[in-house]
Amino acid sequence: MLLLSFFAFNGYAQENLNFGKQKEIISPEVHENGTVTFRLKAPAARKVEVQGDFQPAGSNSAGTDRMVLNADSVWTFTTKVLPSELYSYSFIVDGLKIRDPNNVYLIRDVASVVNVFLVGKGIADLYKVTDVPHGTVSKRWYNSDGLKMSRRLTVYTPPGYESTKENYPVLYLLHGVGGDEEAWMQLGRASQILDNLIATKKVKPMIVVITNGHTINSAAPGESSKGMYKPVMMTPDVFNGDMEQYFPEIIKFTESNYRIKKDKANRAIAGLSMGGFHSLYISANYPNTFAYVGLFSPAILPPSNNQQPIYQQLDKKLSIQAKNGFKLYWIAIGKKDFLFKNVETYRKKLDTIPLKYDYVESEGGHTWSNWRAYLTEFLPLLFN
Amino acid sequence: MLLLSFFAFNGYAQENLNFGKQKEIISPEVHENGTVTFRLKAPAARKVEVQGDFQPAGSNSAGTDRMVLNADSVWTFTTKVLPSELYSYSFIVDGLKIRDPNNVYLIRDVASVVNVFLVGKGIADLYKVTDVPHGTVSKRWYNSDGLKMSRRLTVYTPPGYESTKENYPVLYLLHGVGGDEEAWMQLGRASQILDNLIATKKVKPMIVVITNGHTINSAAPGESSKGMYKPVMMTPDVFNGDMEQYFPEIIKFTESNYRIKKDKANRAIAGLSMGGFHSLYISANYPNTFAYVGLFSPAILPPSNNQQPIYQQLDKKLSIQAKNGFKLYWIAIGKKDFLFKNVETYRKKLDTIPLKYDYVESEGGHTWSNWRAYLTEFLPLLFN
Repeated sequence: MLLLSFFAFNGYAQENLNFGKQKEIISPEVHENGTVTFRLKAPAARKVEVQGDFQPAGSNSAGTDRMVLNADSVWTFTTKVLPSELYSYSFIVDGLKIRDPNNVYLIRDVASVVNVFLVGKGIADLYKVTDVPHGTVSKRWYNSDGLKMSRRLTVYTPPGYESTKENYPVLYLLHGVGGDEEAWMQLGRASQILDNLIATKKVKPMIVVITNGHTINSAAPGESSKGMYKPVMMTPDVFNGDMEQYFPEIIKFTESNYRIKKDKANRAIAGLSMGGFHSLYISANYPNTFAYVGLFSPAILPPSNNQQPIYQQLDKKLSIQAKNGFKLYWIAIGKKDFLFKNVETYRKKLDTIPLKYDYVESEGGHTWSNWRAYLTEFLPLLFN
Repeated sequence: MLLLSFFAFNGYAQENLNFGKQKEIISPEVHENGTVTFRLKAPAARKVEVQGDFQPAGSNSAGTDRMVLNADSVWTFTTKVLPSELYSYSFIVDGLKIRDPNNVYLIRDVASVVNVFLVGKGIADLYKVTDVPHGTVSKRWYNSDGLKMSRRLTVYTPPGYESTKENYPVLYLLHGVGGDEEAWMQLGRASQILDNLIATKKVKPMIVVITNGHTINSAAPGESSKGMYKPVMMTPDVFNGDMEQYFPEIIKFTESNYRIKKDKANRAIAGLSMGGFHSLYISANYPNTFAYVGLFSPAILPPSNNQQPIYQQLDKKLSIQAKNGFKLYWIAIGKKDFLFKNVETYRKKLDTIPLKYDYVESEGGHTWSNWRAYLTEFLPLLFN
């Protein structure tokens, strides 16, 4: 068969072929009942463990589970029934943390790359690609005069954007200190959440603009002229005020490049962790701009640059923001979040301003599991 | 420092932090002189090798290089000087092939995920993101009435598209049997090549539409309702004629959704391997549609469905195509390509039709290295 030689010959792909010599290894295998089986062929290994954020299902204190070697030299472990979620995991082979070679679905978080899988029949059904109309996701560059560089954005336009003449409301969605303009799509499953919730009419069709909050960078690692460097979390721009100061450039770009309803009632801003901090200060400094503000596990921490006017007279700014009025000021945090107390203190401040907020206290900590869930709760509240 | 606790606490990111306890491992390190050093910390390993497409720099017949353990439990290997290229590689630890945990830059090819790095000062400078104006890259869905599904495309619009009212020429760019609508951007570095060549005016600003040539799929693995399955290369749609038959839907979608110059002189089609086969039959079956045709290592193989009218009377169709006229019929193949003889036979057929073609014979085989290079050679020939 010529076709067979075609497939056999096709460079790297050779290793993907299976001529019946050995059983194809499927890992992870998500079973109907919500248990998950991991498999790794590693004949020379002495000890293989799996480590993931589905643990402490983990059978030991290190939060790992031992995998068991079967007759085919395949190490195997099956979890207990897992709640619906997007999970990540690694294997540990004789102390070395590796990716699952049979799972091509990977997500980068700062300098770590982990395998992921979805367990459905619950909240993670919103994180799946389903057969509903899909929005368009674009990587696009805007010019920042203030930061003196061209910078990359991710823009979601909803189904129907291209086939109608309508104007749409807009949500600016900001990432945390480890993220960039890719994080909300990759780790946050934002386009799937939007597609799925817009399809069931639980969420109004809207444009979502996902920015890069590290103002020394023009784009995510590997996507700028800095090349393929090893990503770091800590950059000199963190809490220095540049993101907040130059945010109006992003609004201006968005409103002059997309069909946007350009009024406060149709403008929302939300962010997680550092992006919650940014959303707080952006909405306070431009206090008549956003009708909707979402602070997801906001990093209420001292700014690194106290001299920045952006960070001064916060109480006064919040007071003006409150007087100007808004539709929703929404705060969510997990009970185990290390920022819980900081957010509690901030809520007390808001009570004294007073600035009326909605508050959601969830289980868990400072995790993408919470931020995805917060997004699914926050979006239906917008533009009603 | 509160900020420090913020970074230390940040979930998965913890493993990315380095509090001075151990030296940060950089791998790969691309040196100024074009050598590359790989490093892997694996104290328990007995044998560590590196395997990549930069070999046969490989020191043994398996095309691997042994890495050497140094005093810090870090295994190390430095290559000889490498020609400029985008390379991929894996580590092999005691027989187990793994990714480099210090390199977050990964590319999927069918079911394999490999690490990549760039060596510059040559052709790969075109594969780098540089500080030139960037086009917009969108993931967008069109409705296929013929295939009865919504399907995903990657669309590149050039710098200036959004800020002018101009119409643009269009290139339809097709992938091989292992690919999908992501392959030309991920493995092919198409957006970088386009940005860089448009910036130096070597290439006319154009819209590039990258399709998914597996007609049983609506999108790349993980991007459709089929979920996160293990990708396979062989699907029942290969060479069955559906891609060619329903291609006019894609042209229609493109021309009604983008500012396109809608005439033959401004329409090009090109593809690699299976996509070259598709481009051949699409341009022959719609023989007055494309002024430019590019066949990159085309998979000139018997169709799987000989009954398909698309595949019948090829000589007659080519003859009509030749008589209708065109600007360029461009064929490129590597001397070591397993399809070399098939392409030679096809060229003889074209000589007898006659259909005048341009022919480039390169070194090497059926590889992305060639396809990236062919794209850089083909693009400047378009729309002049």
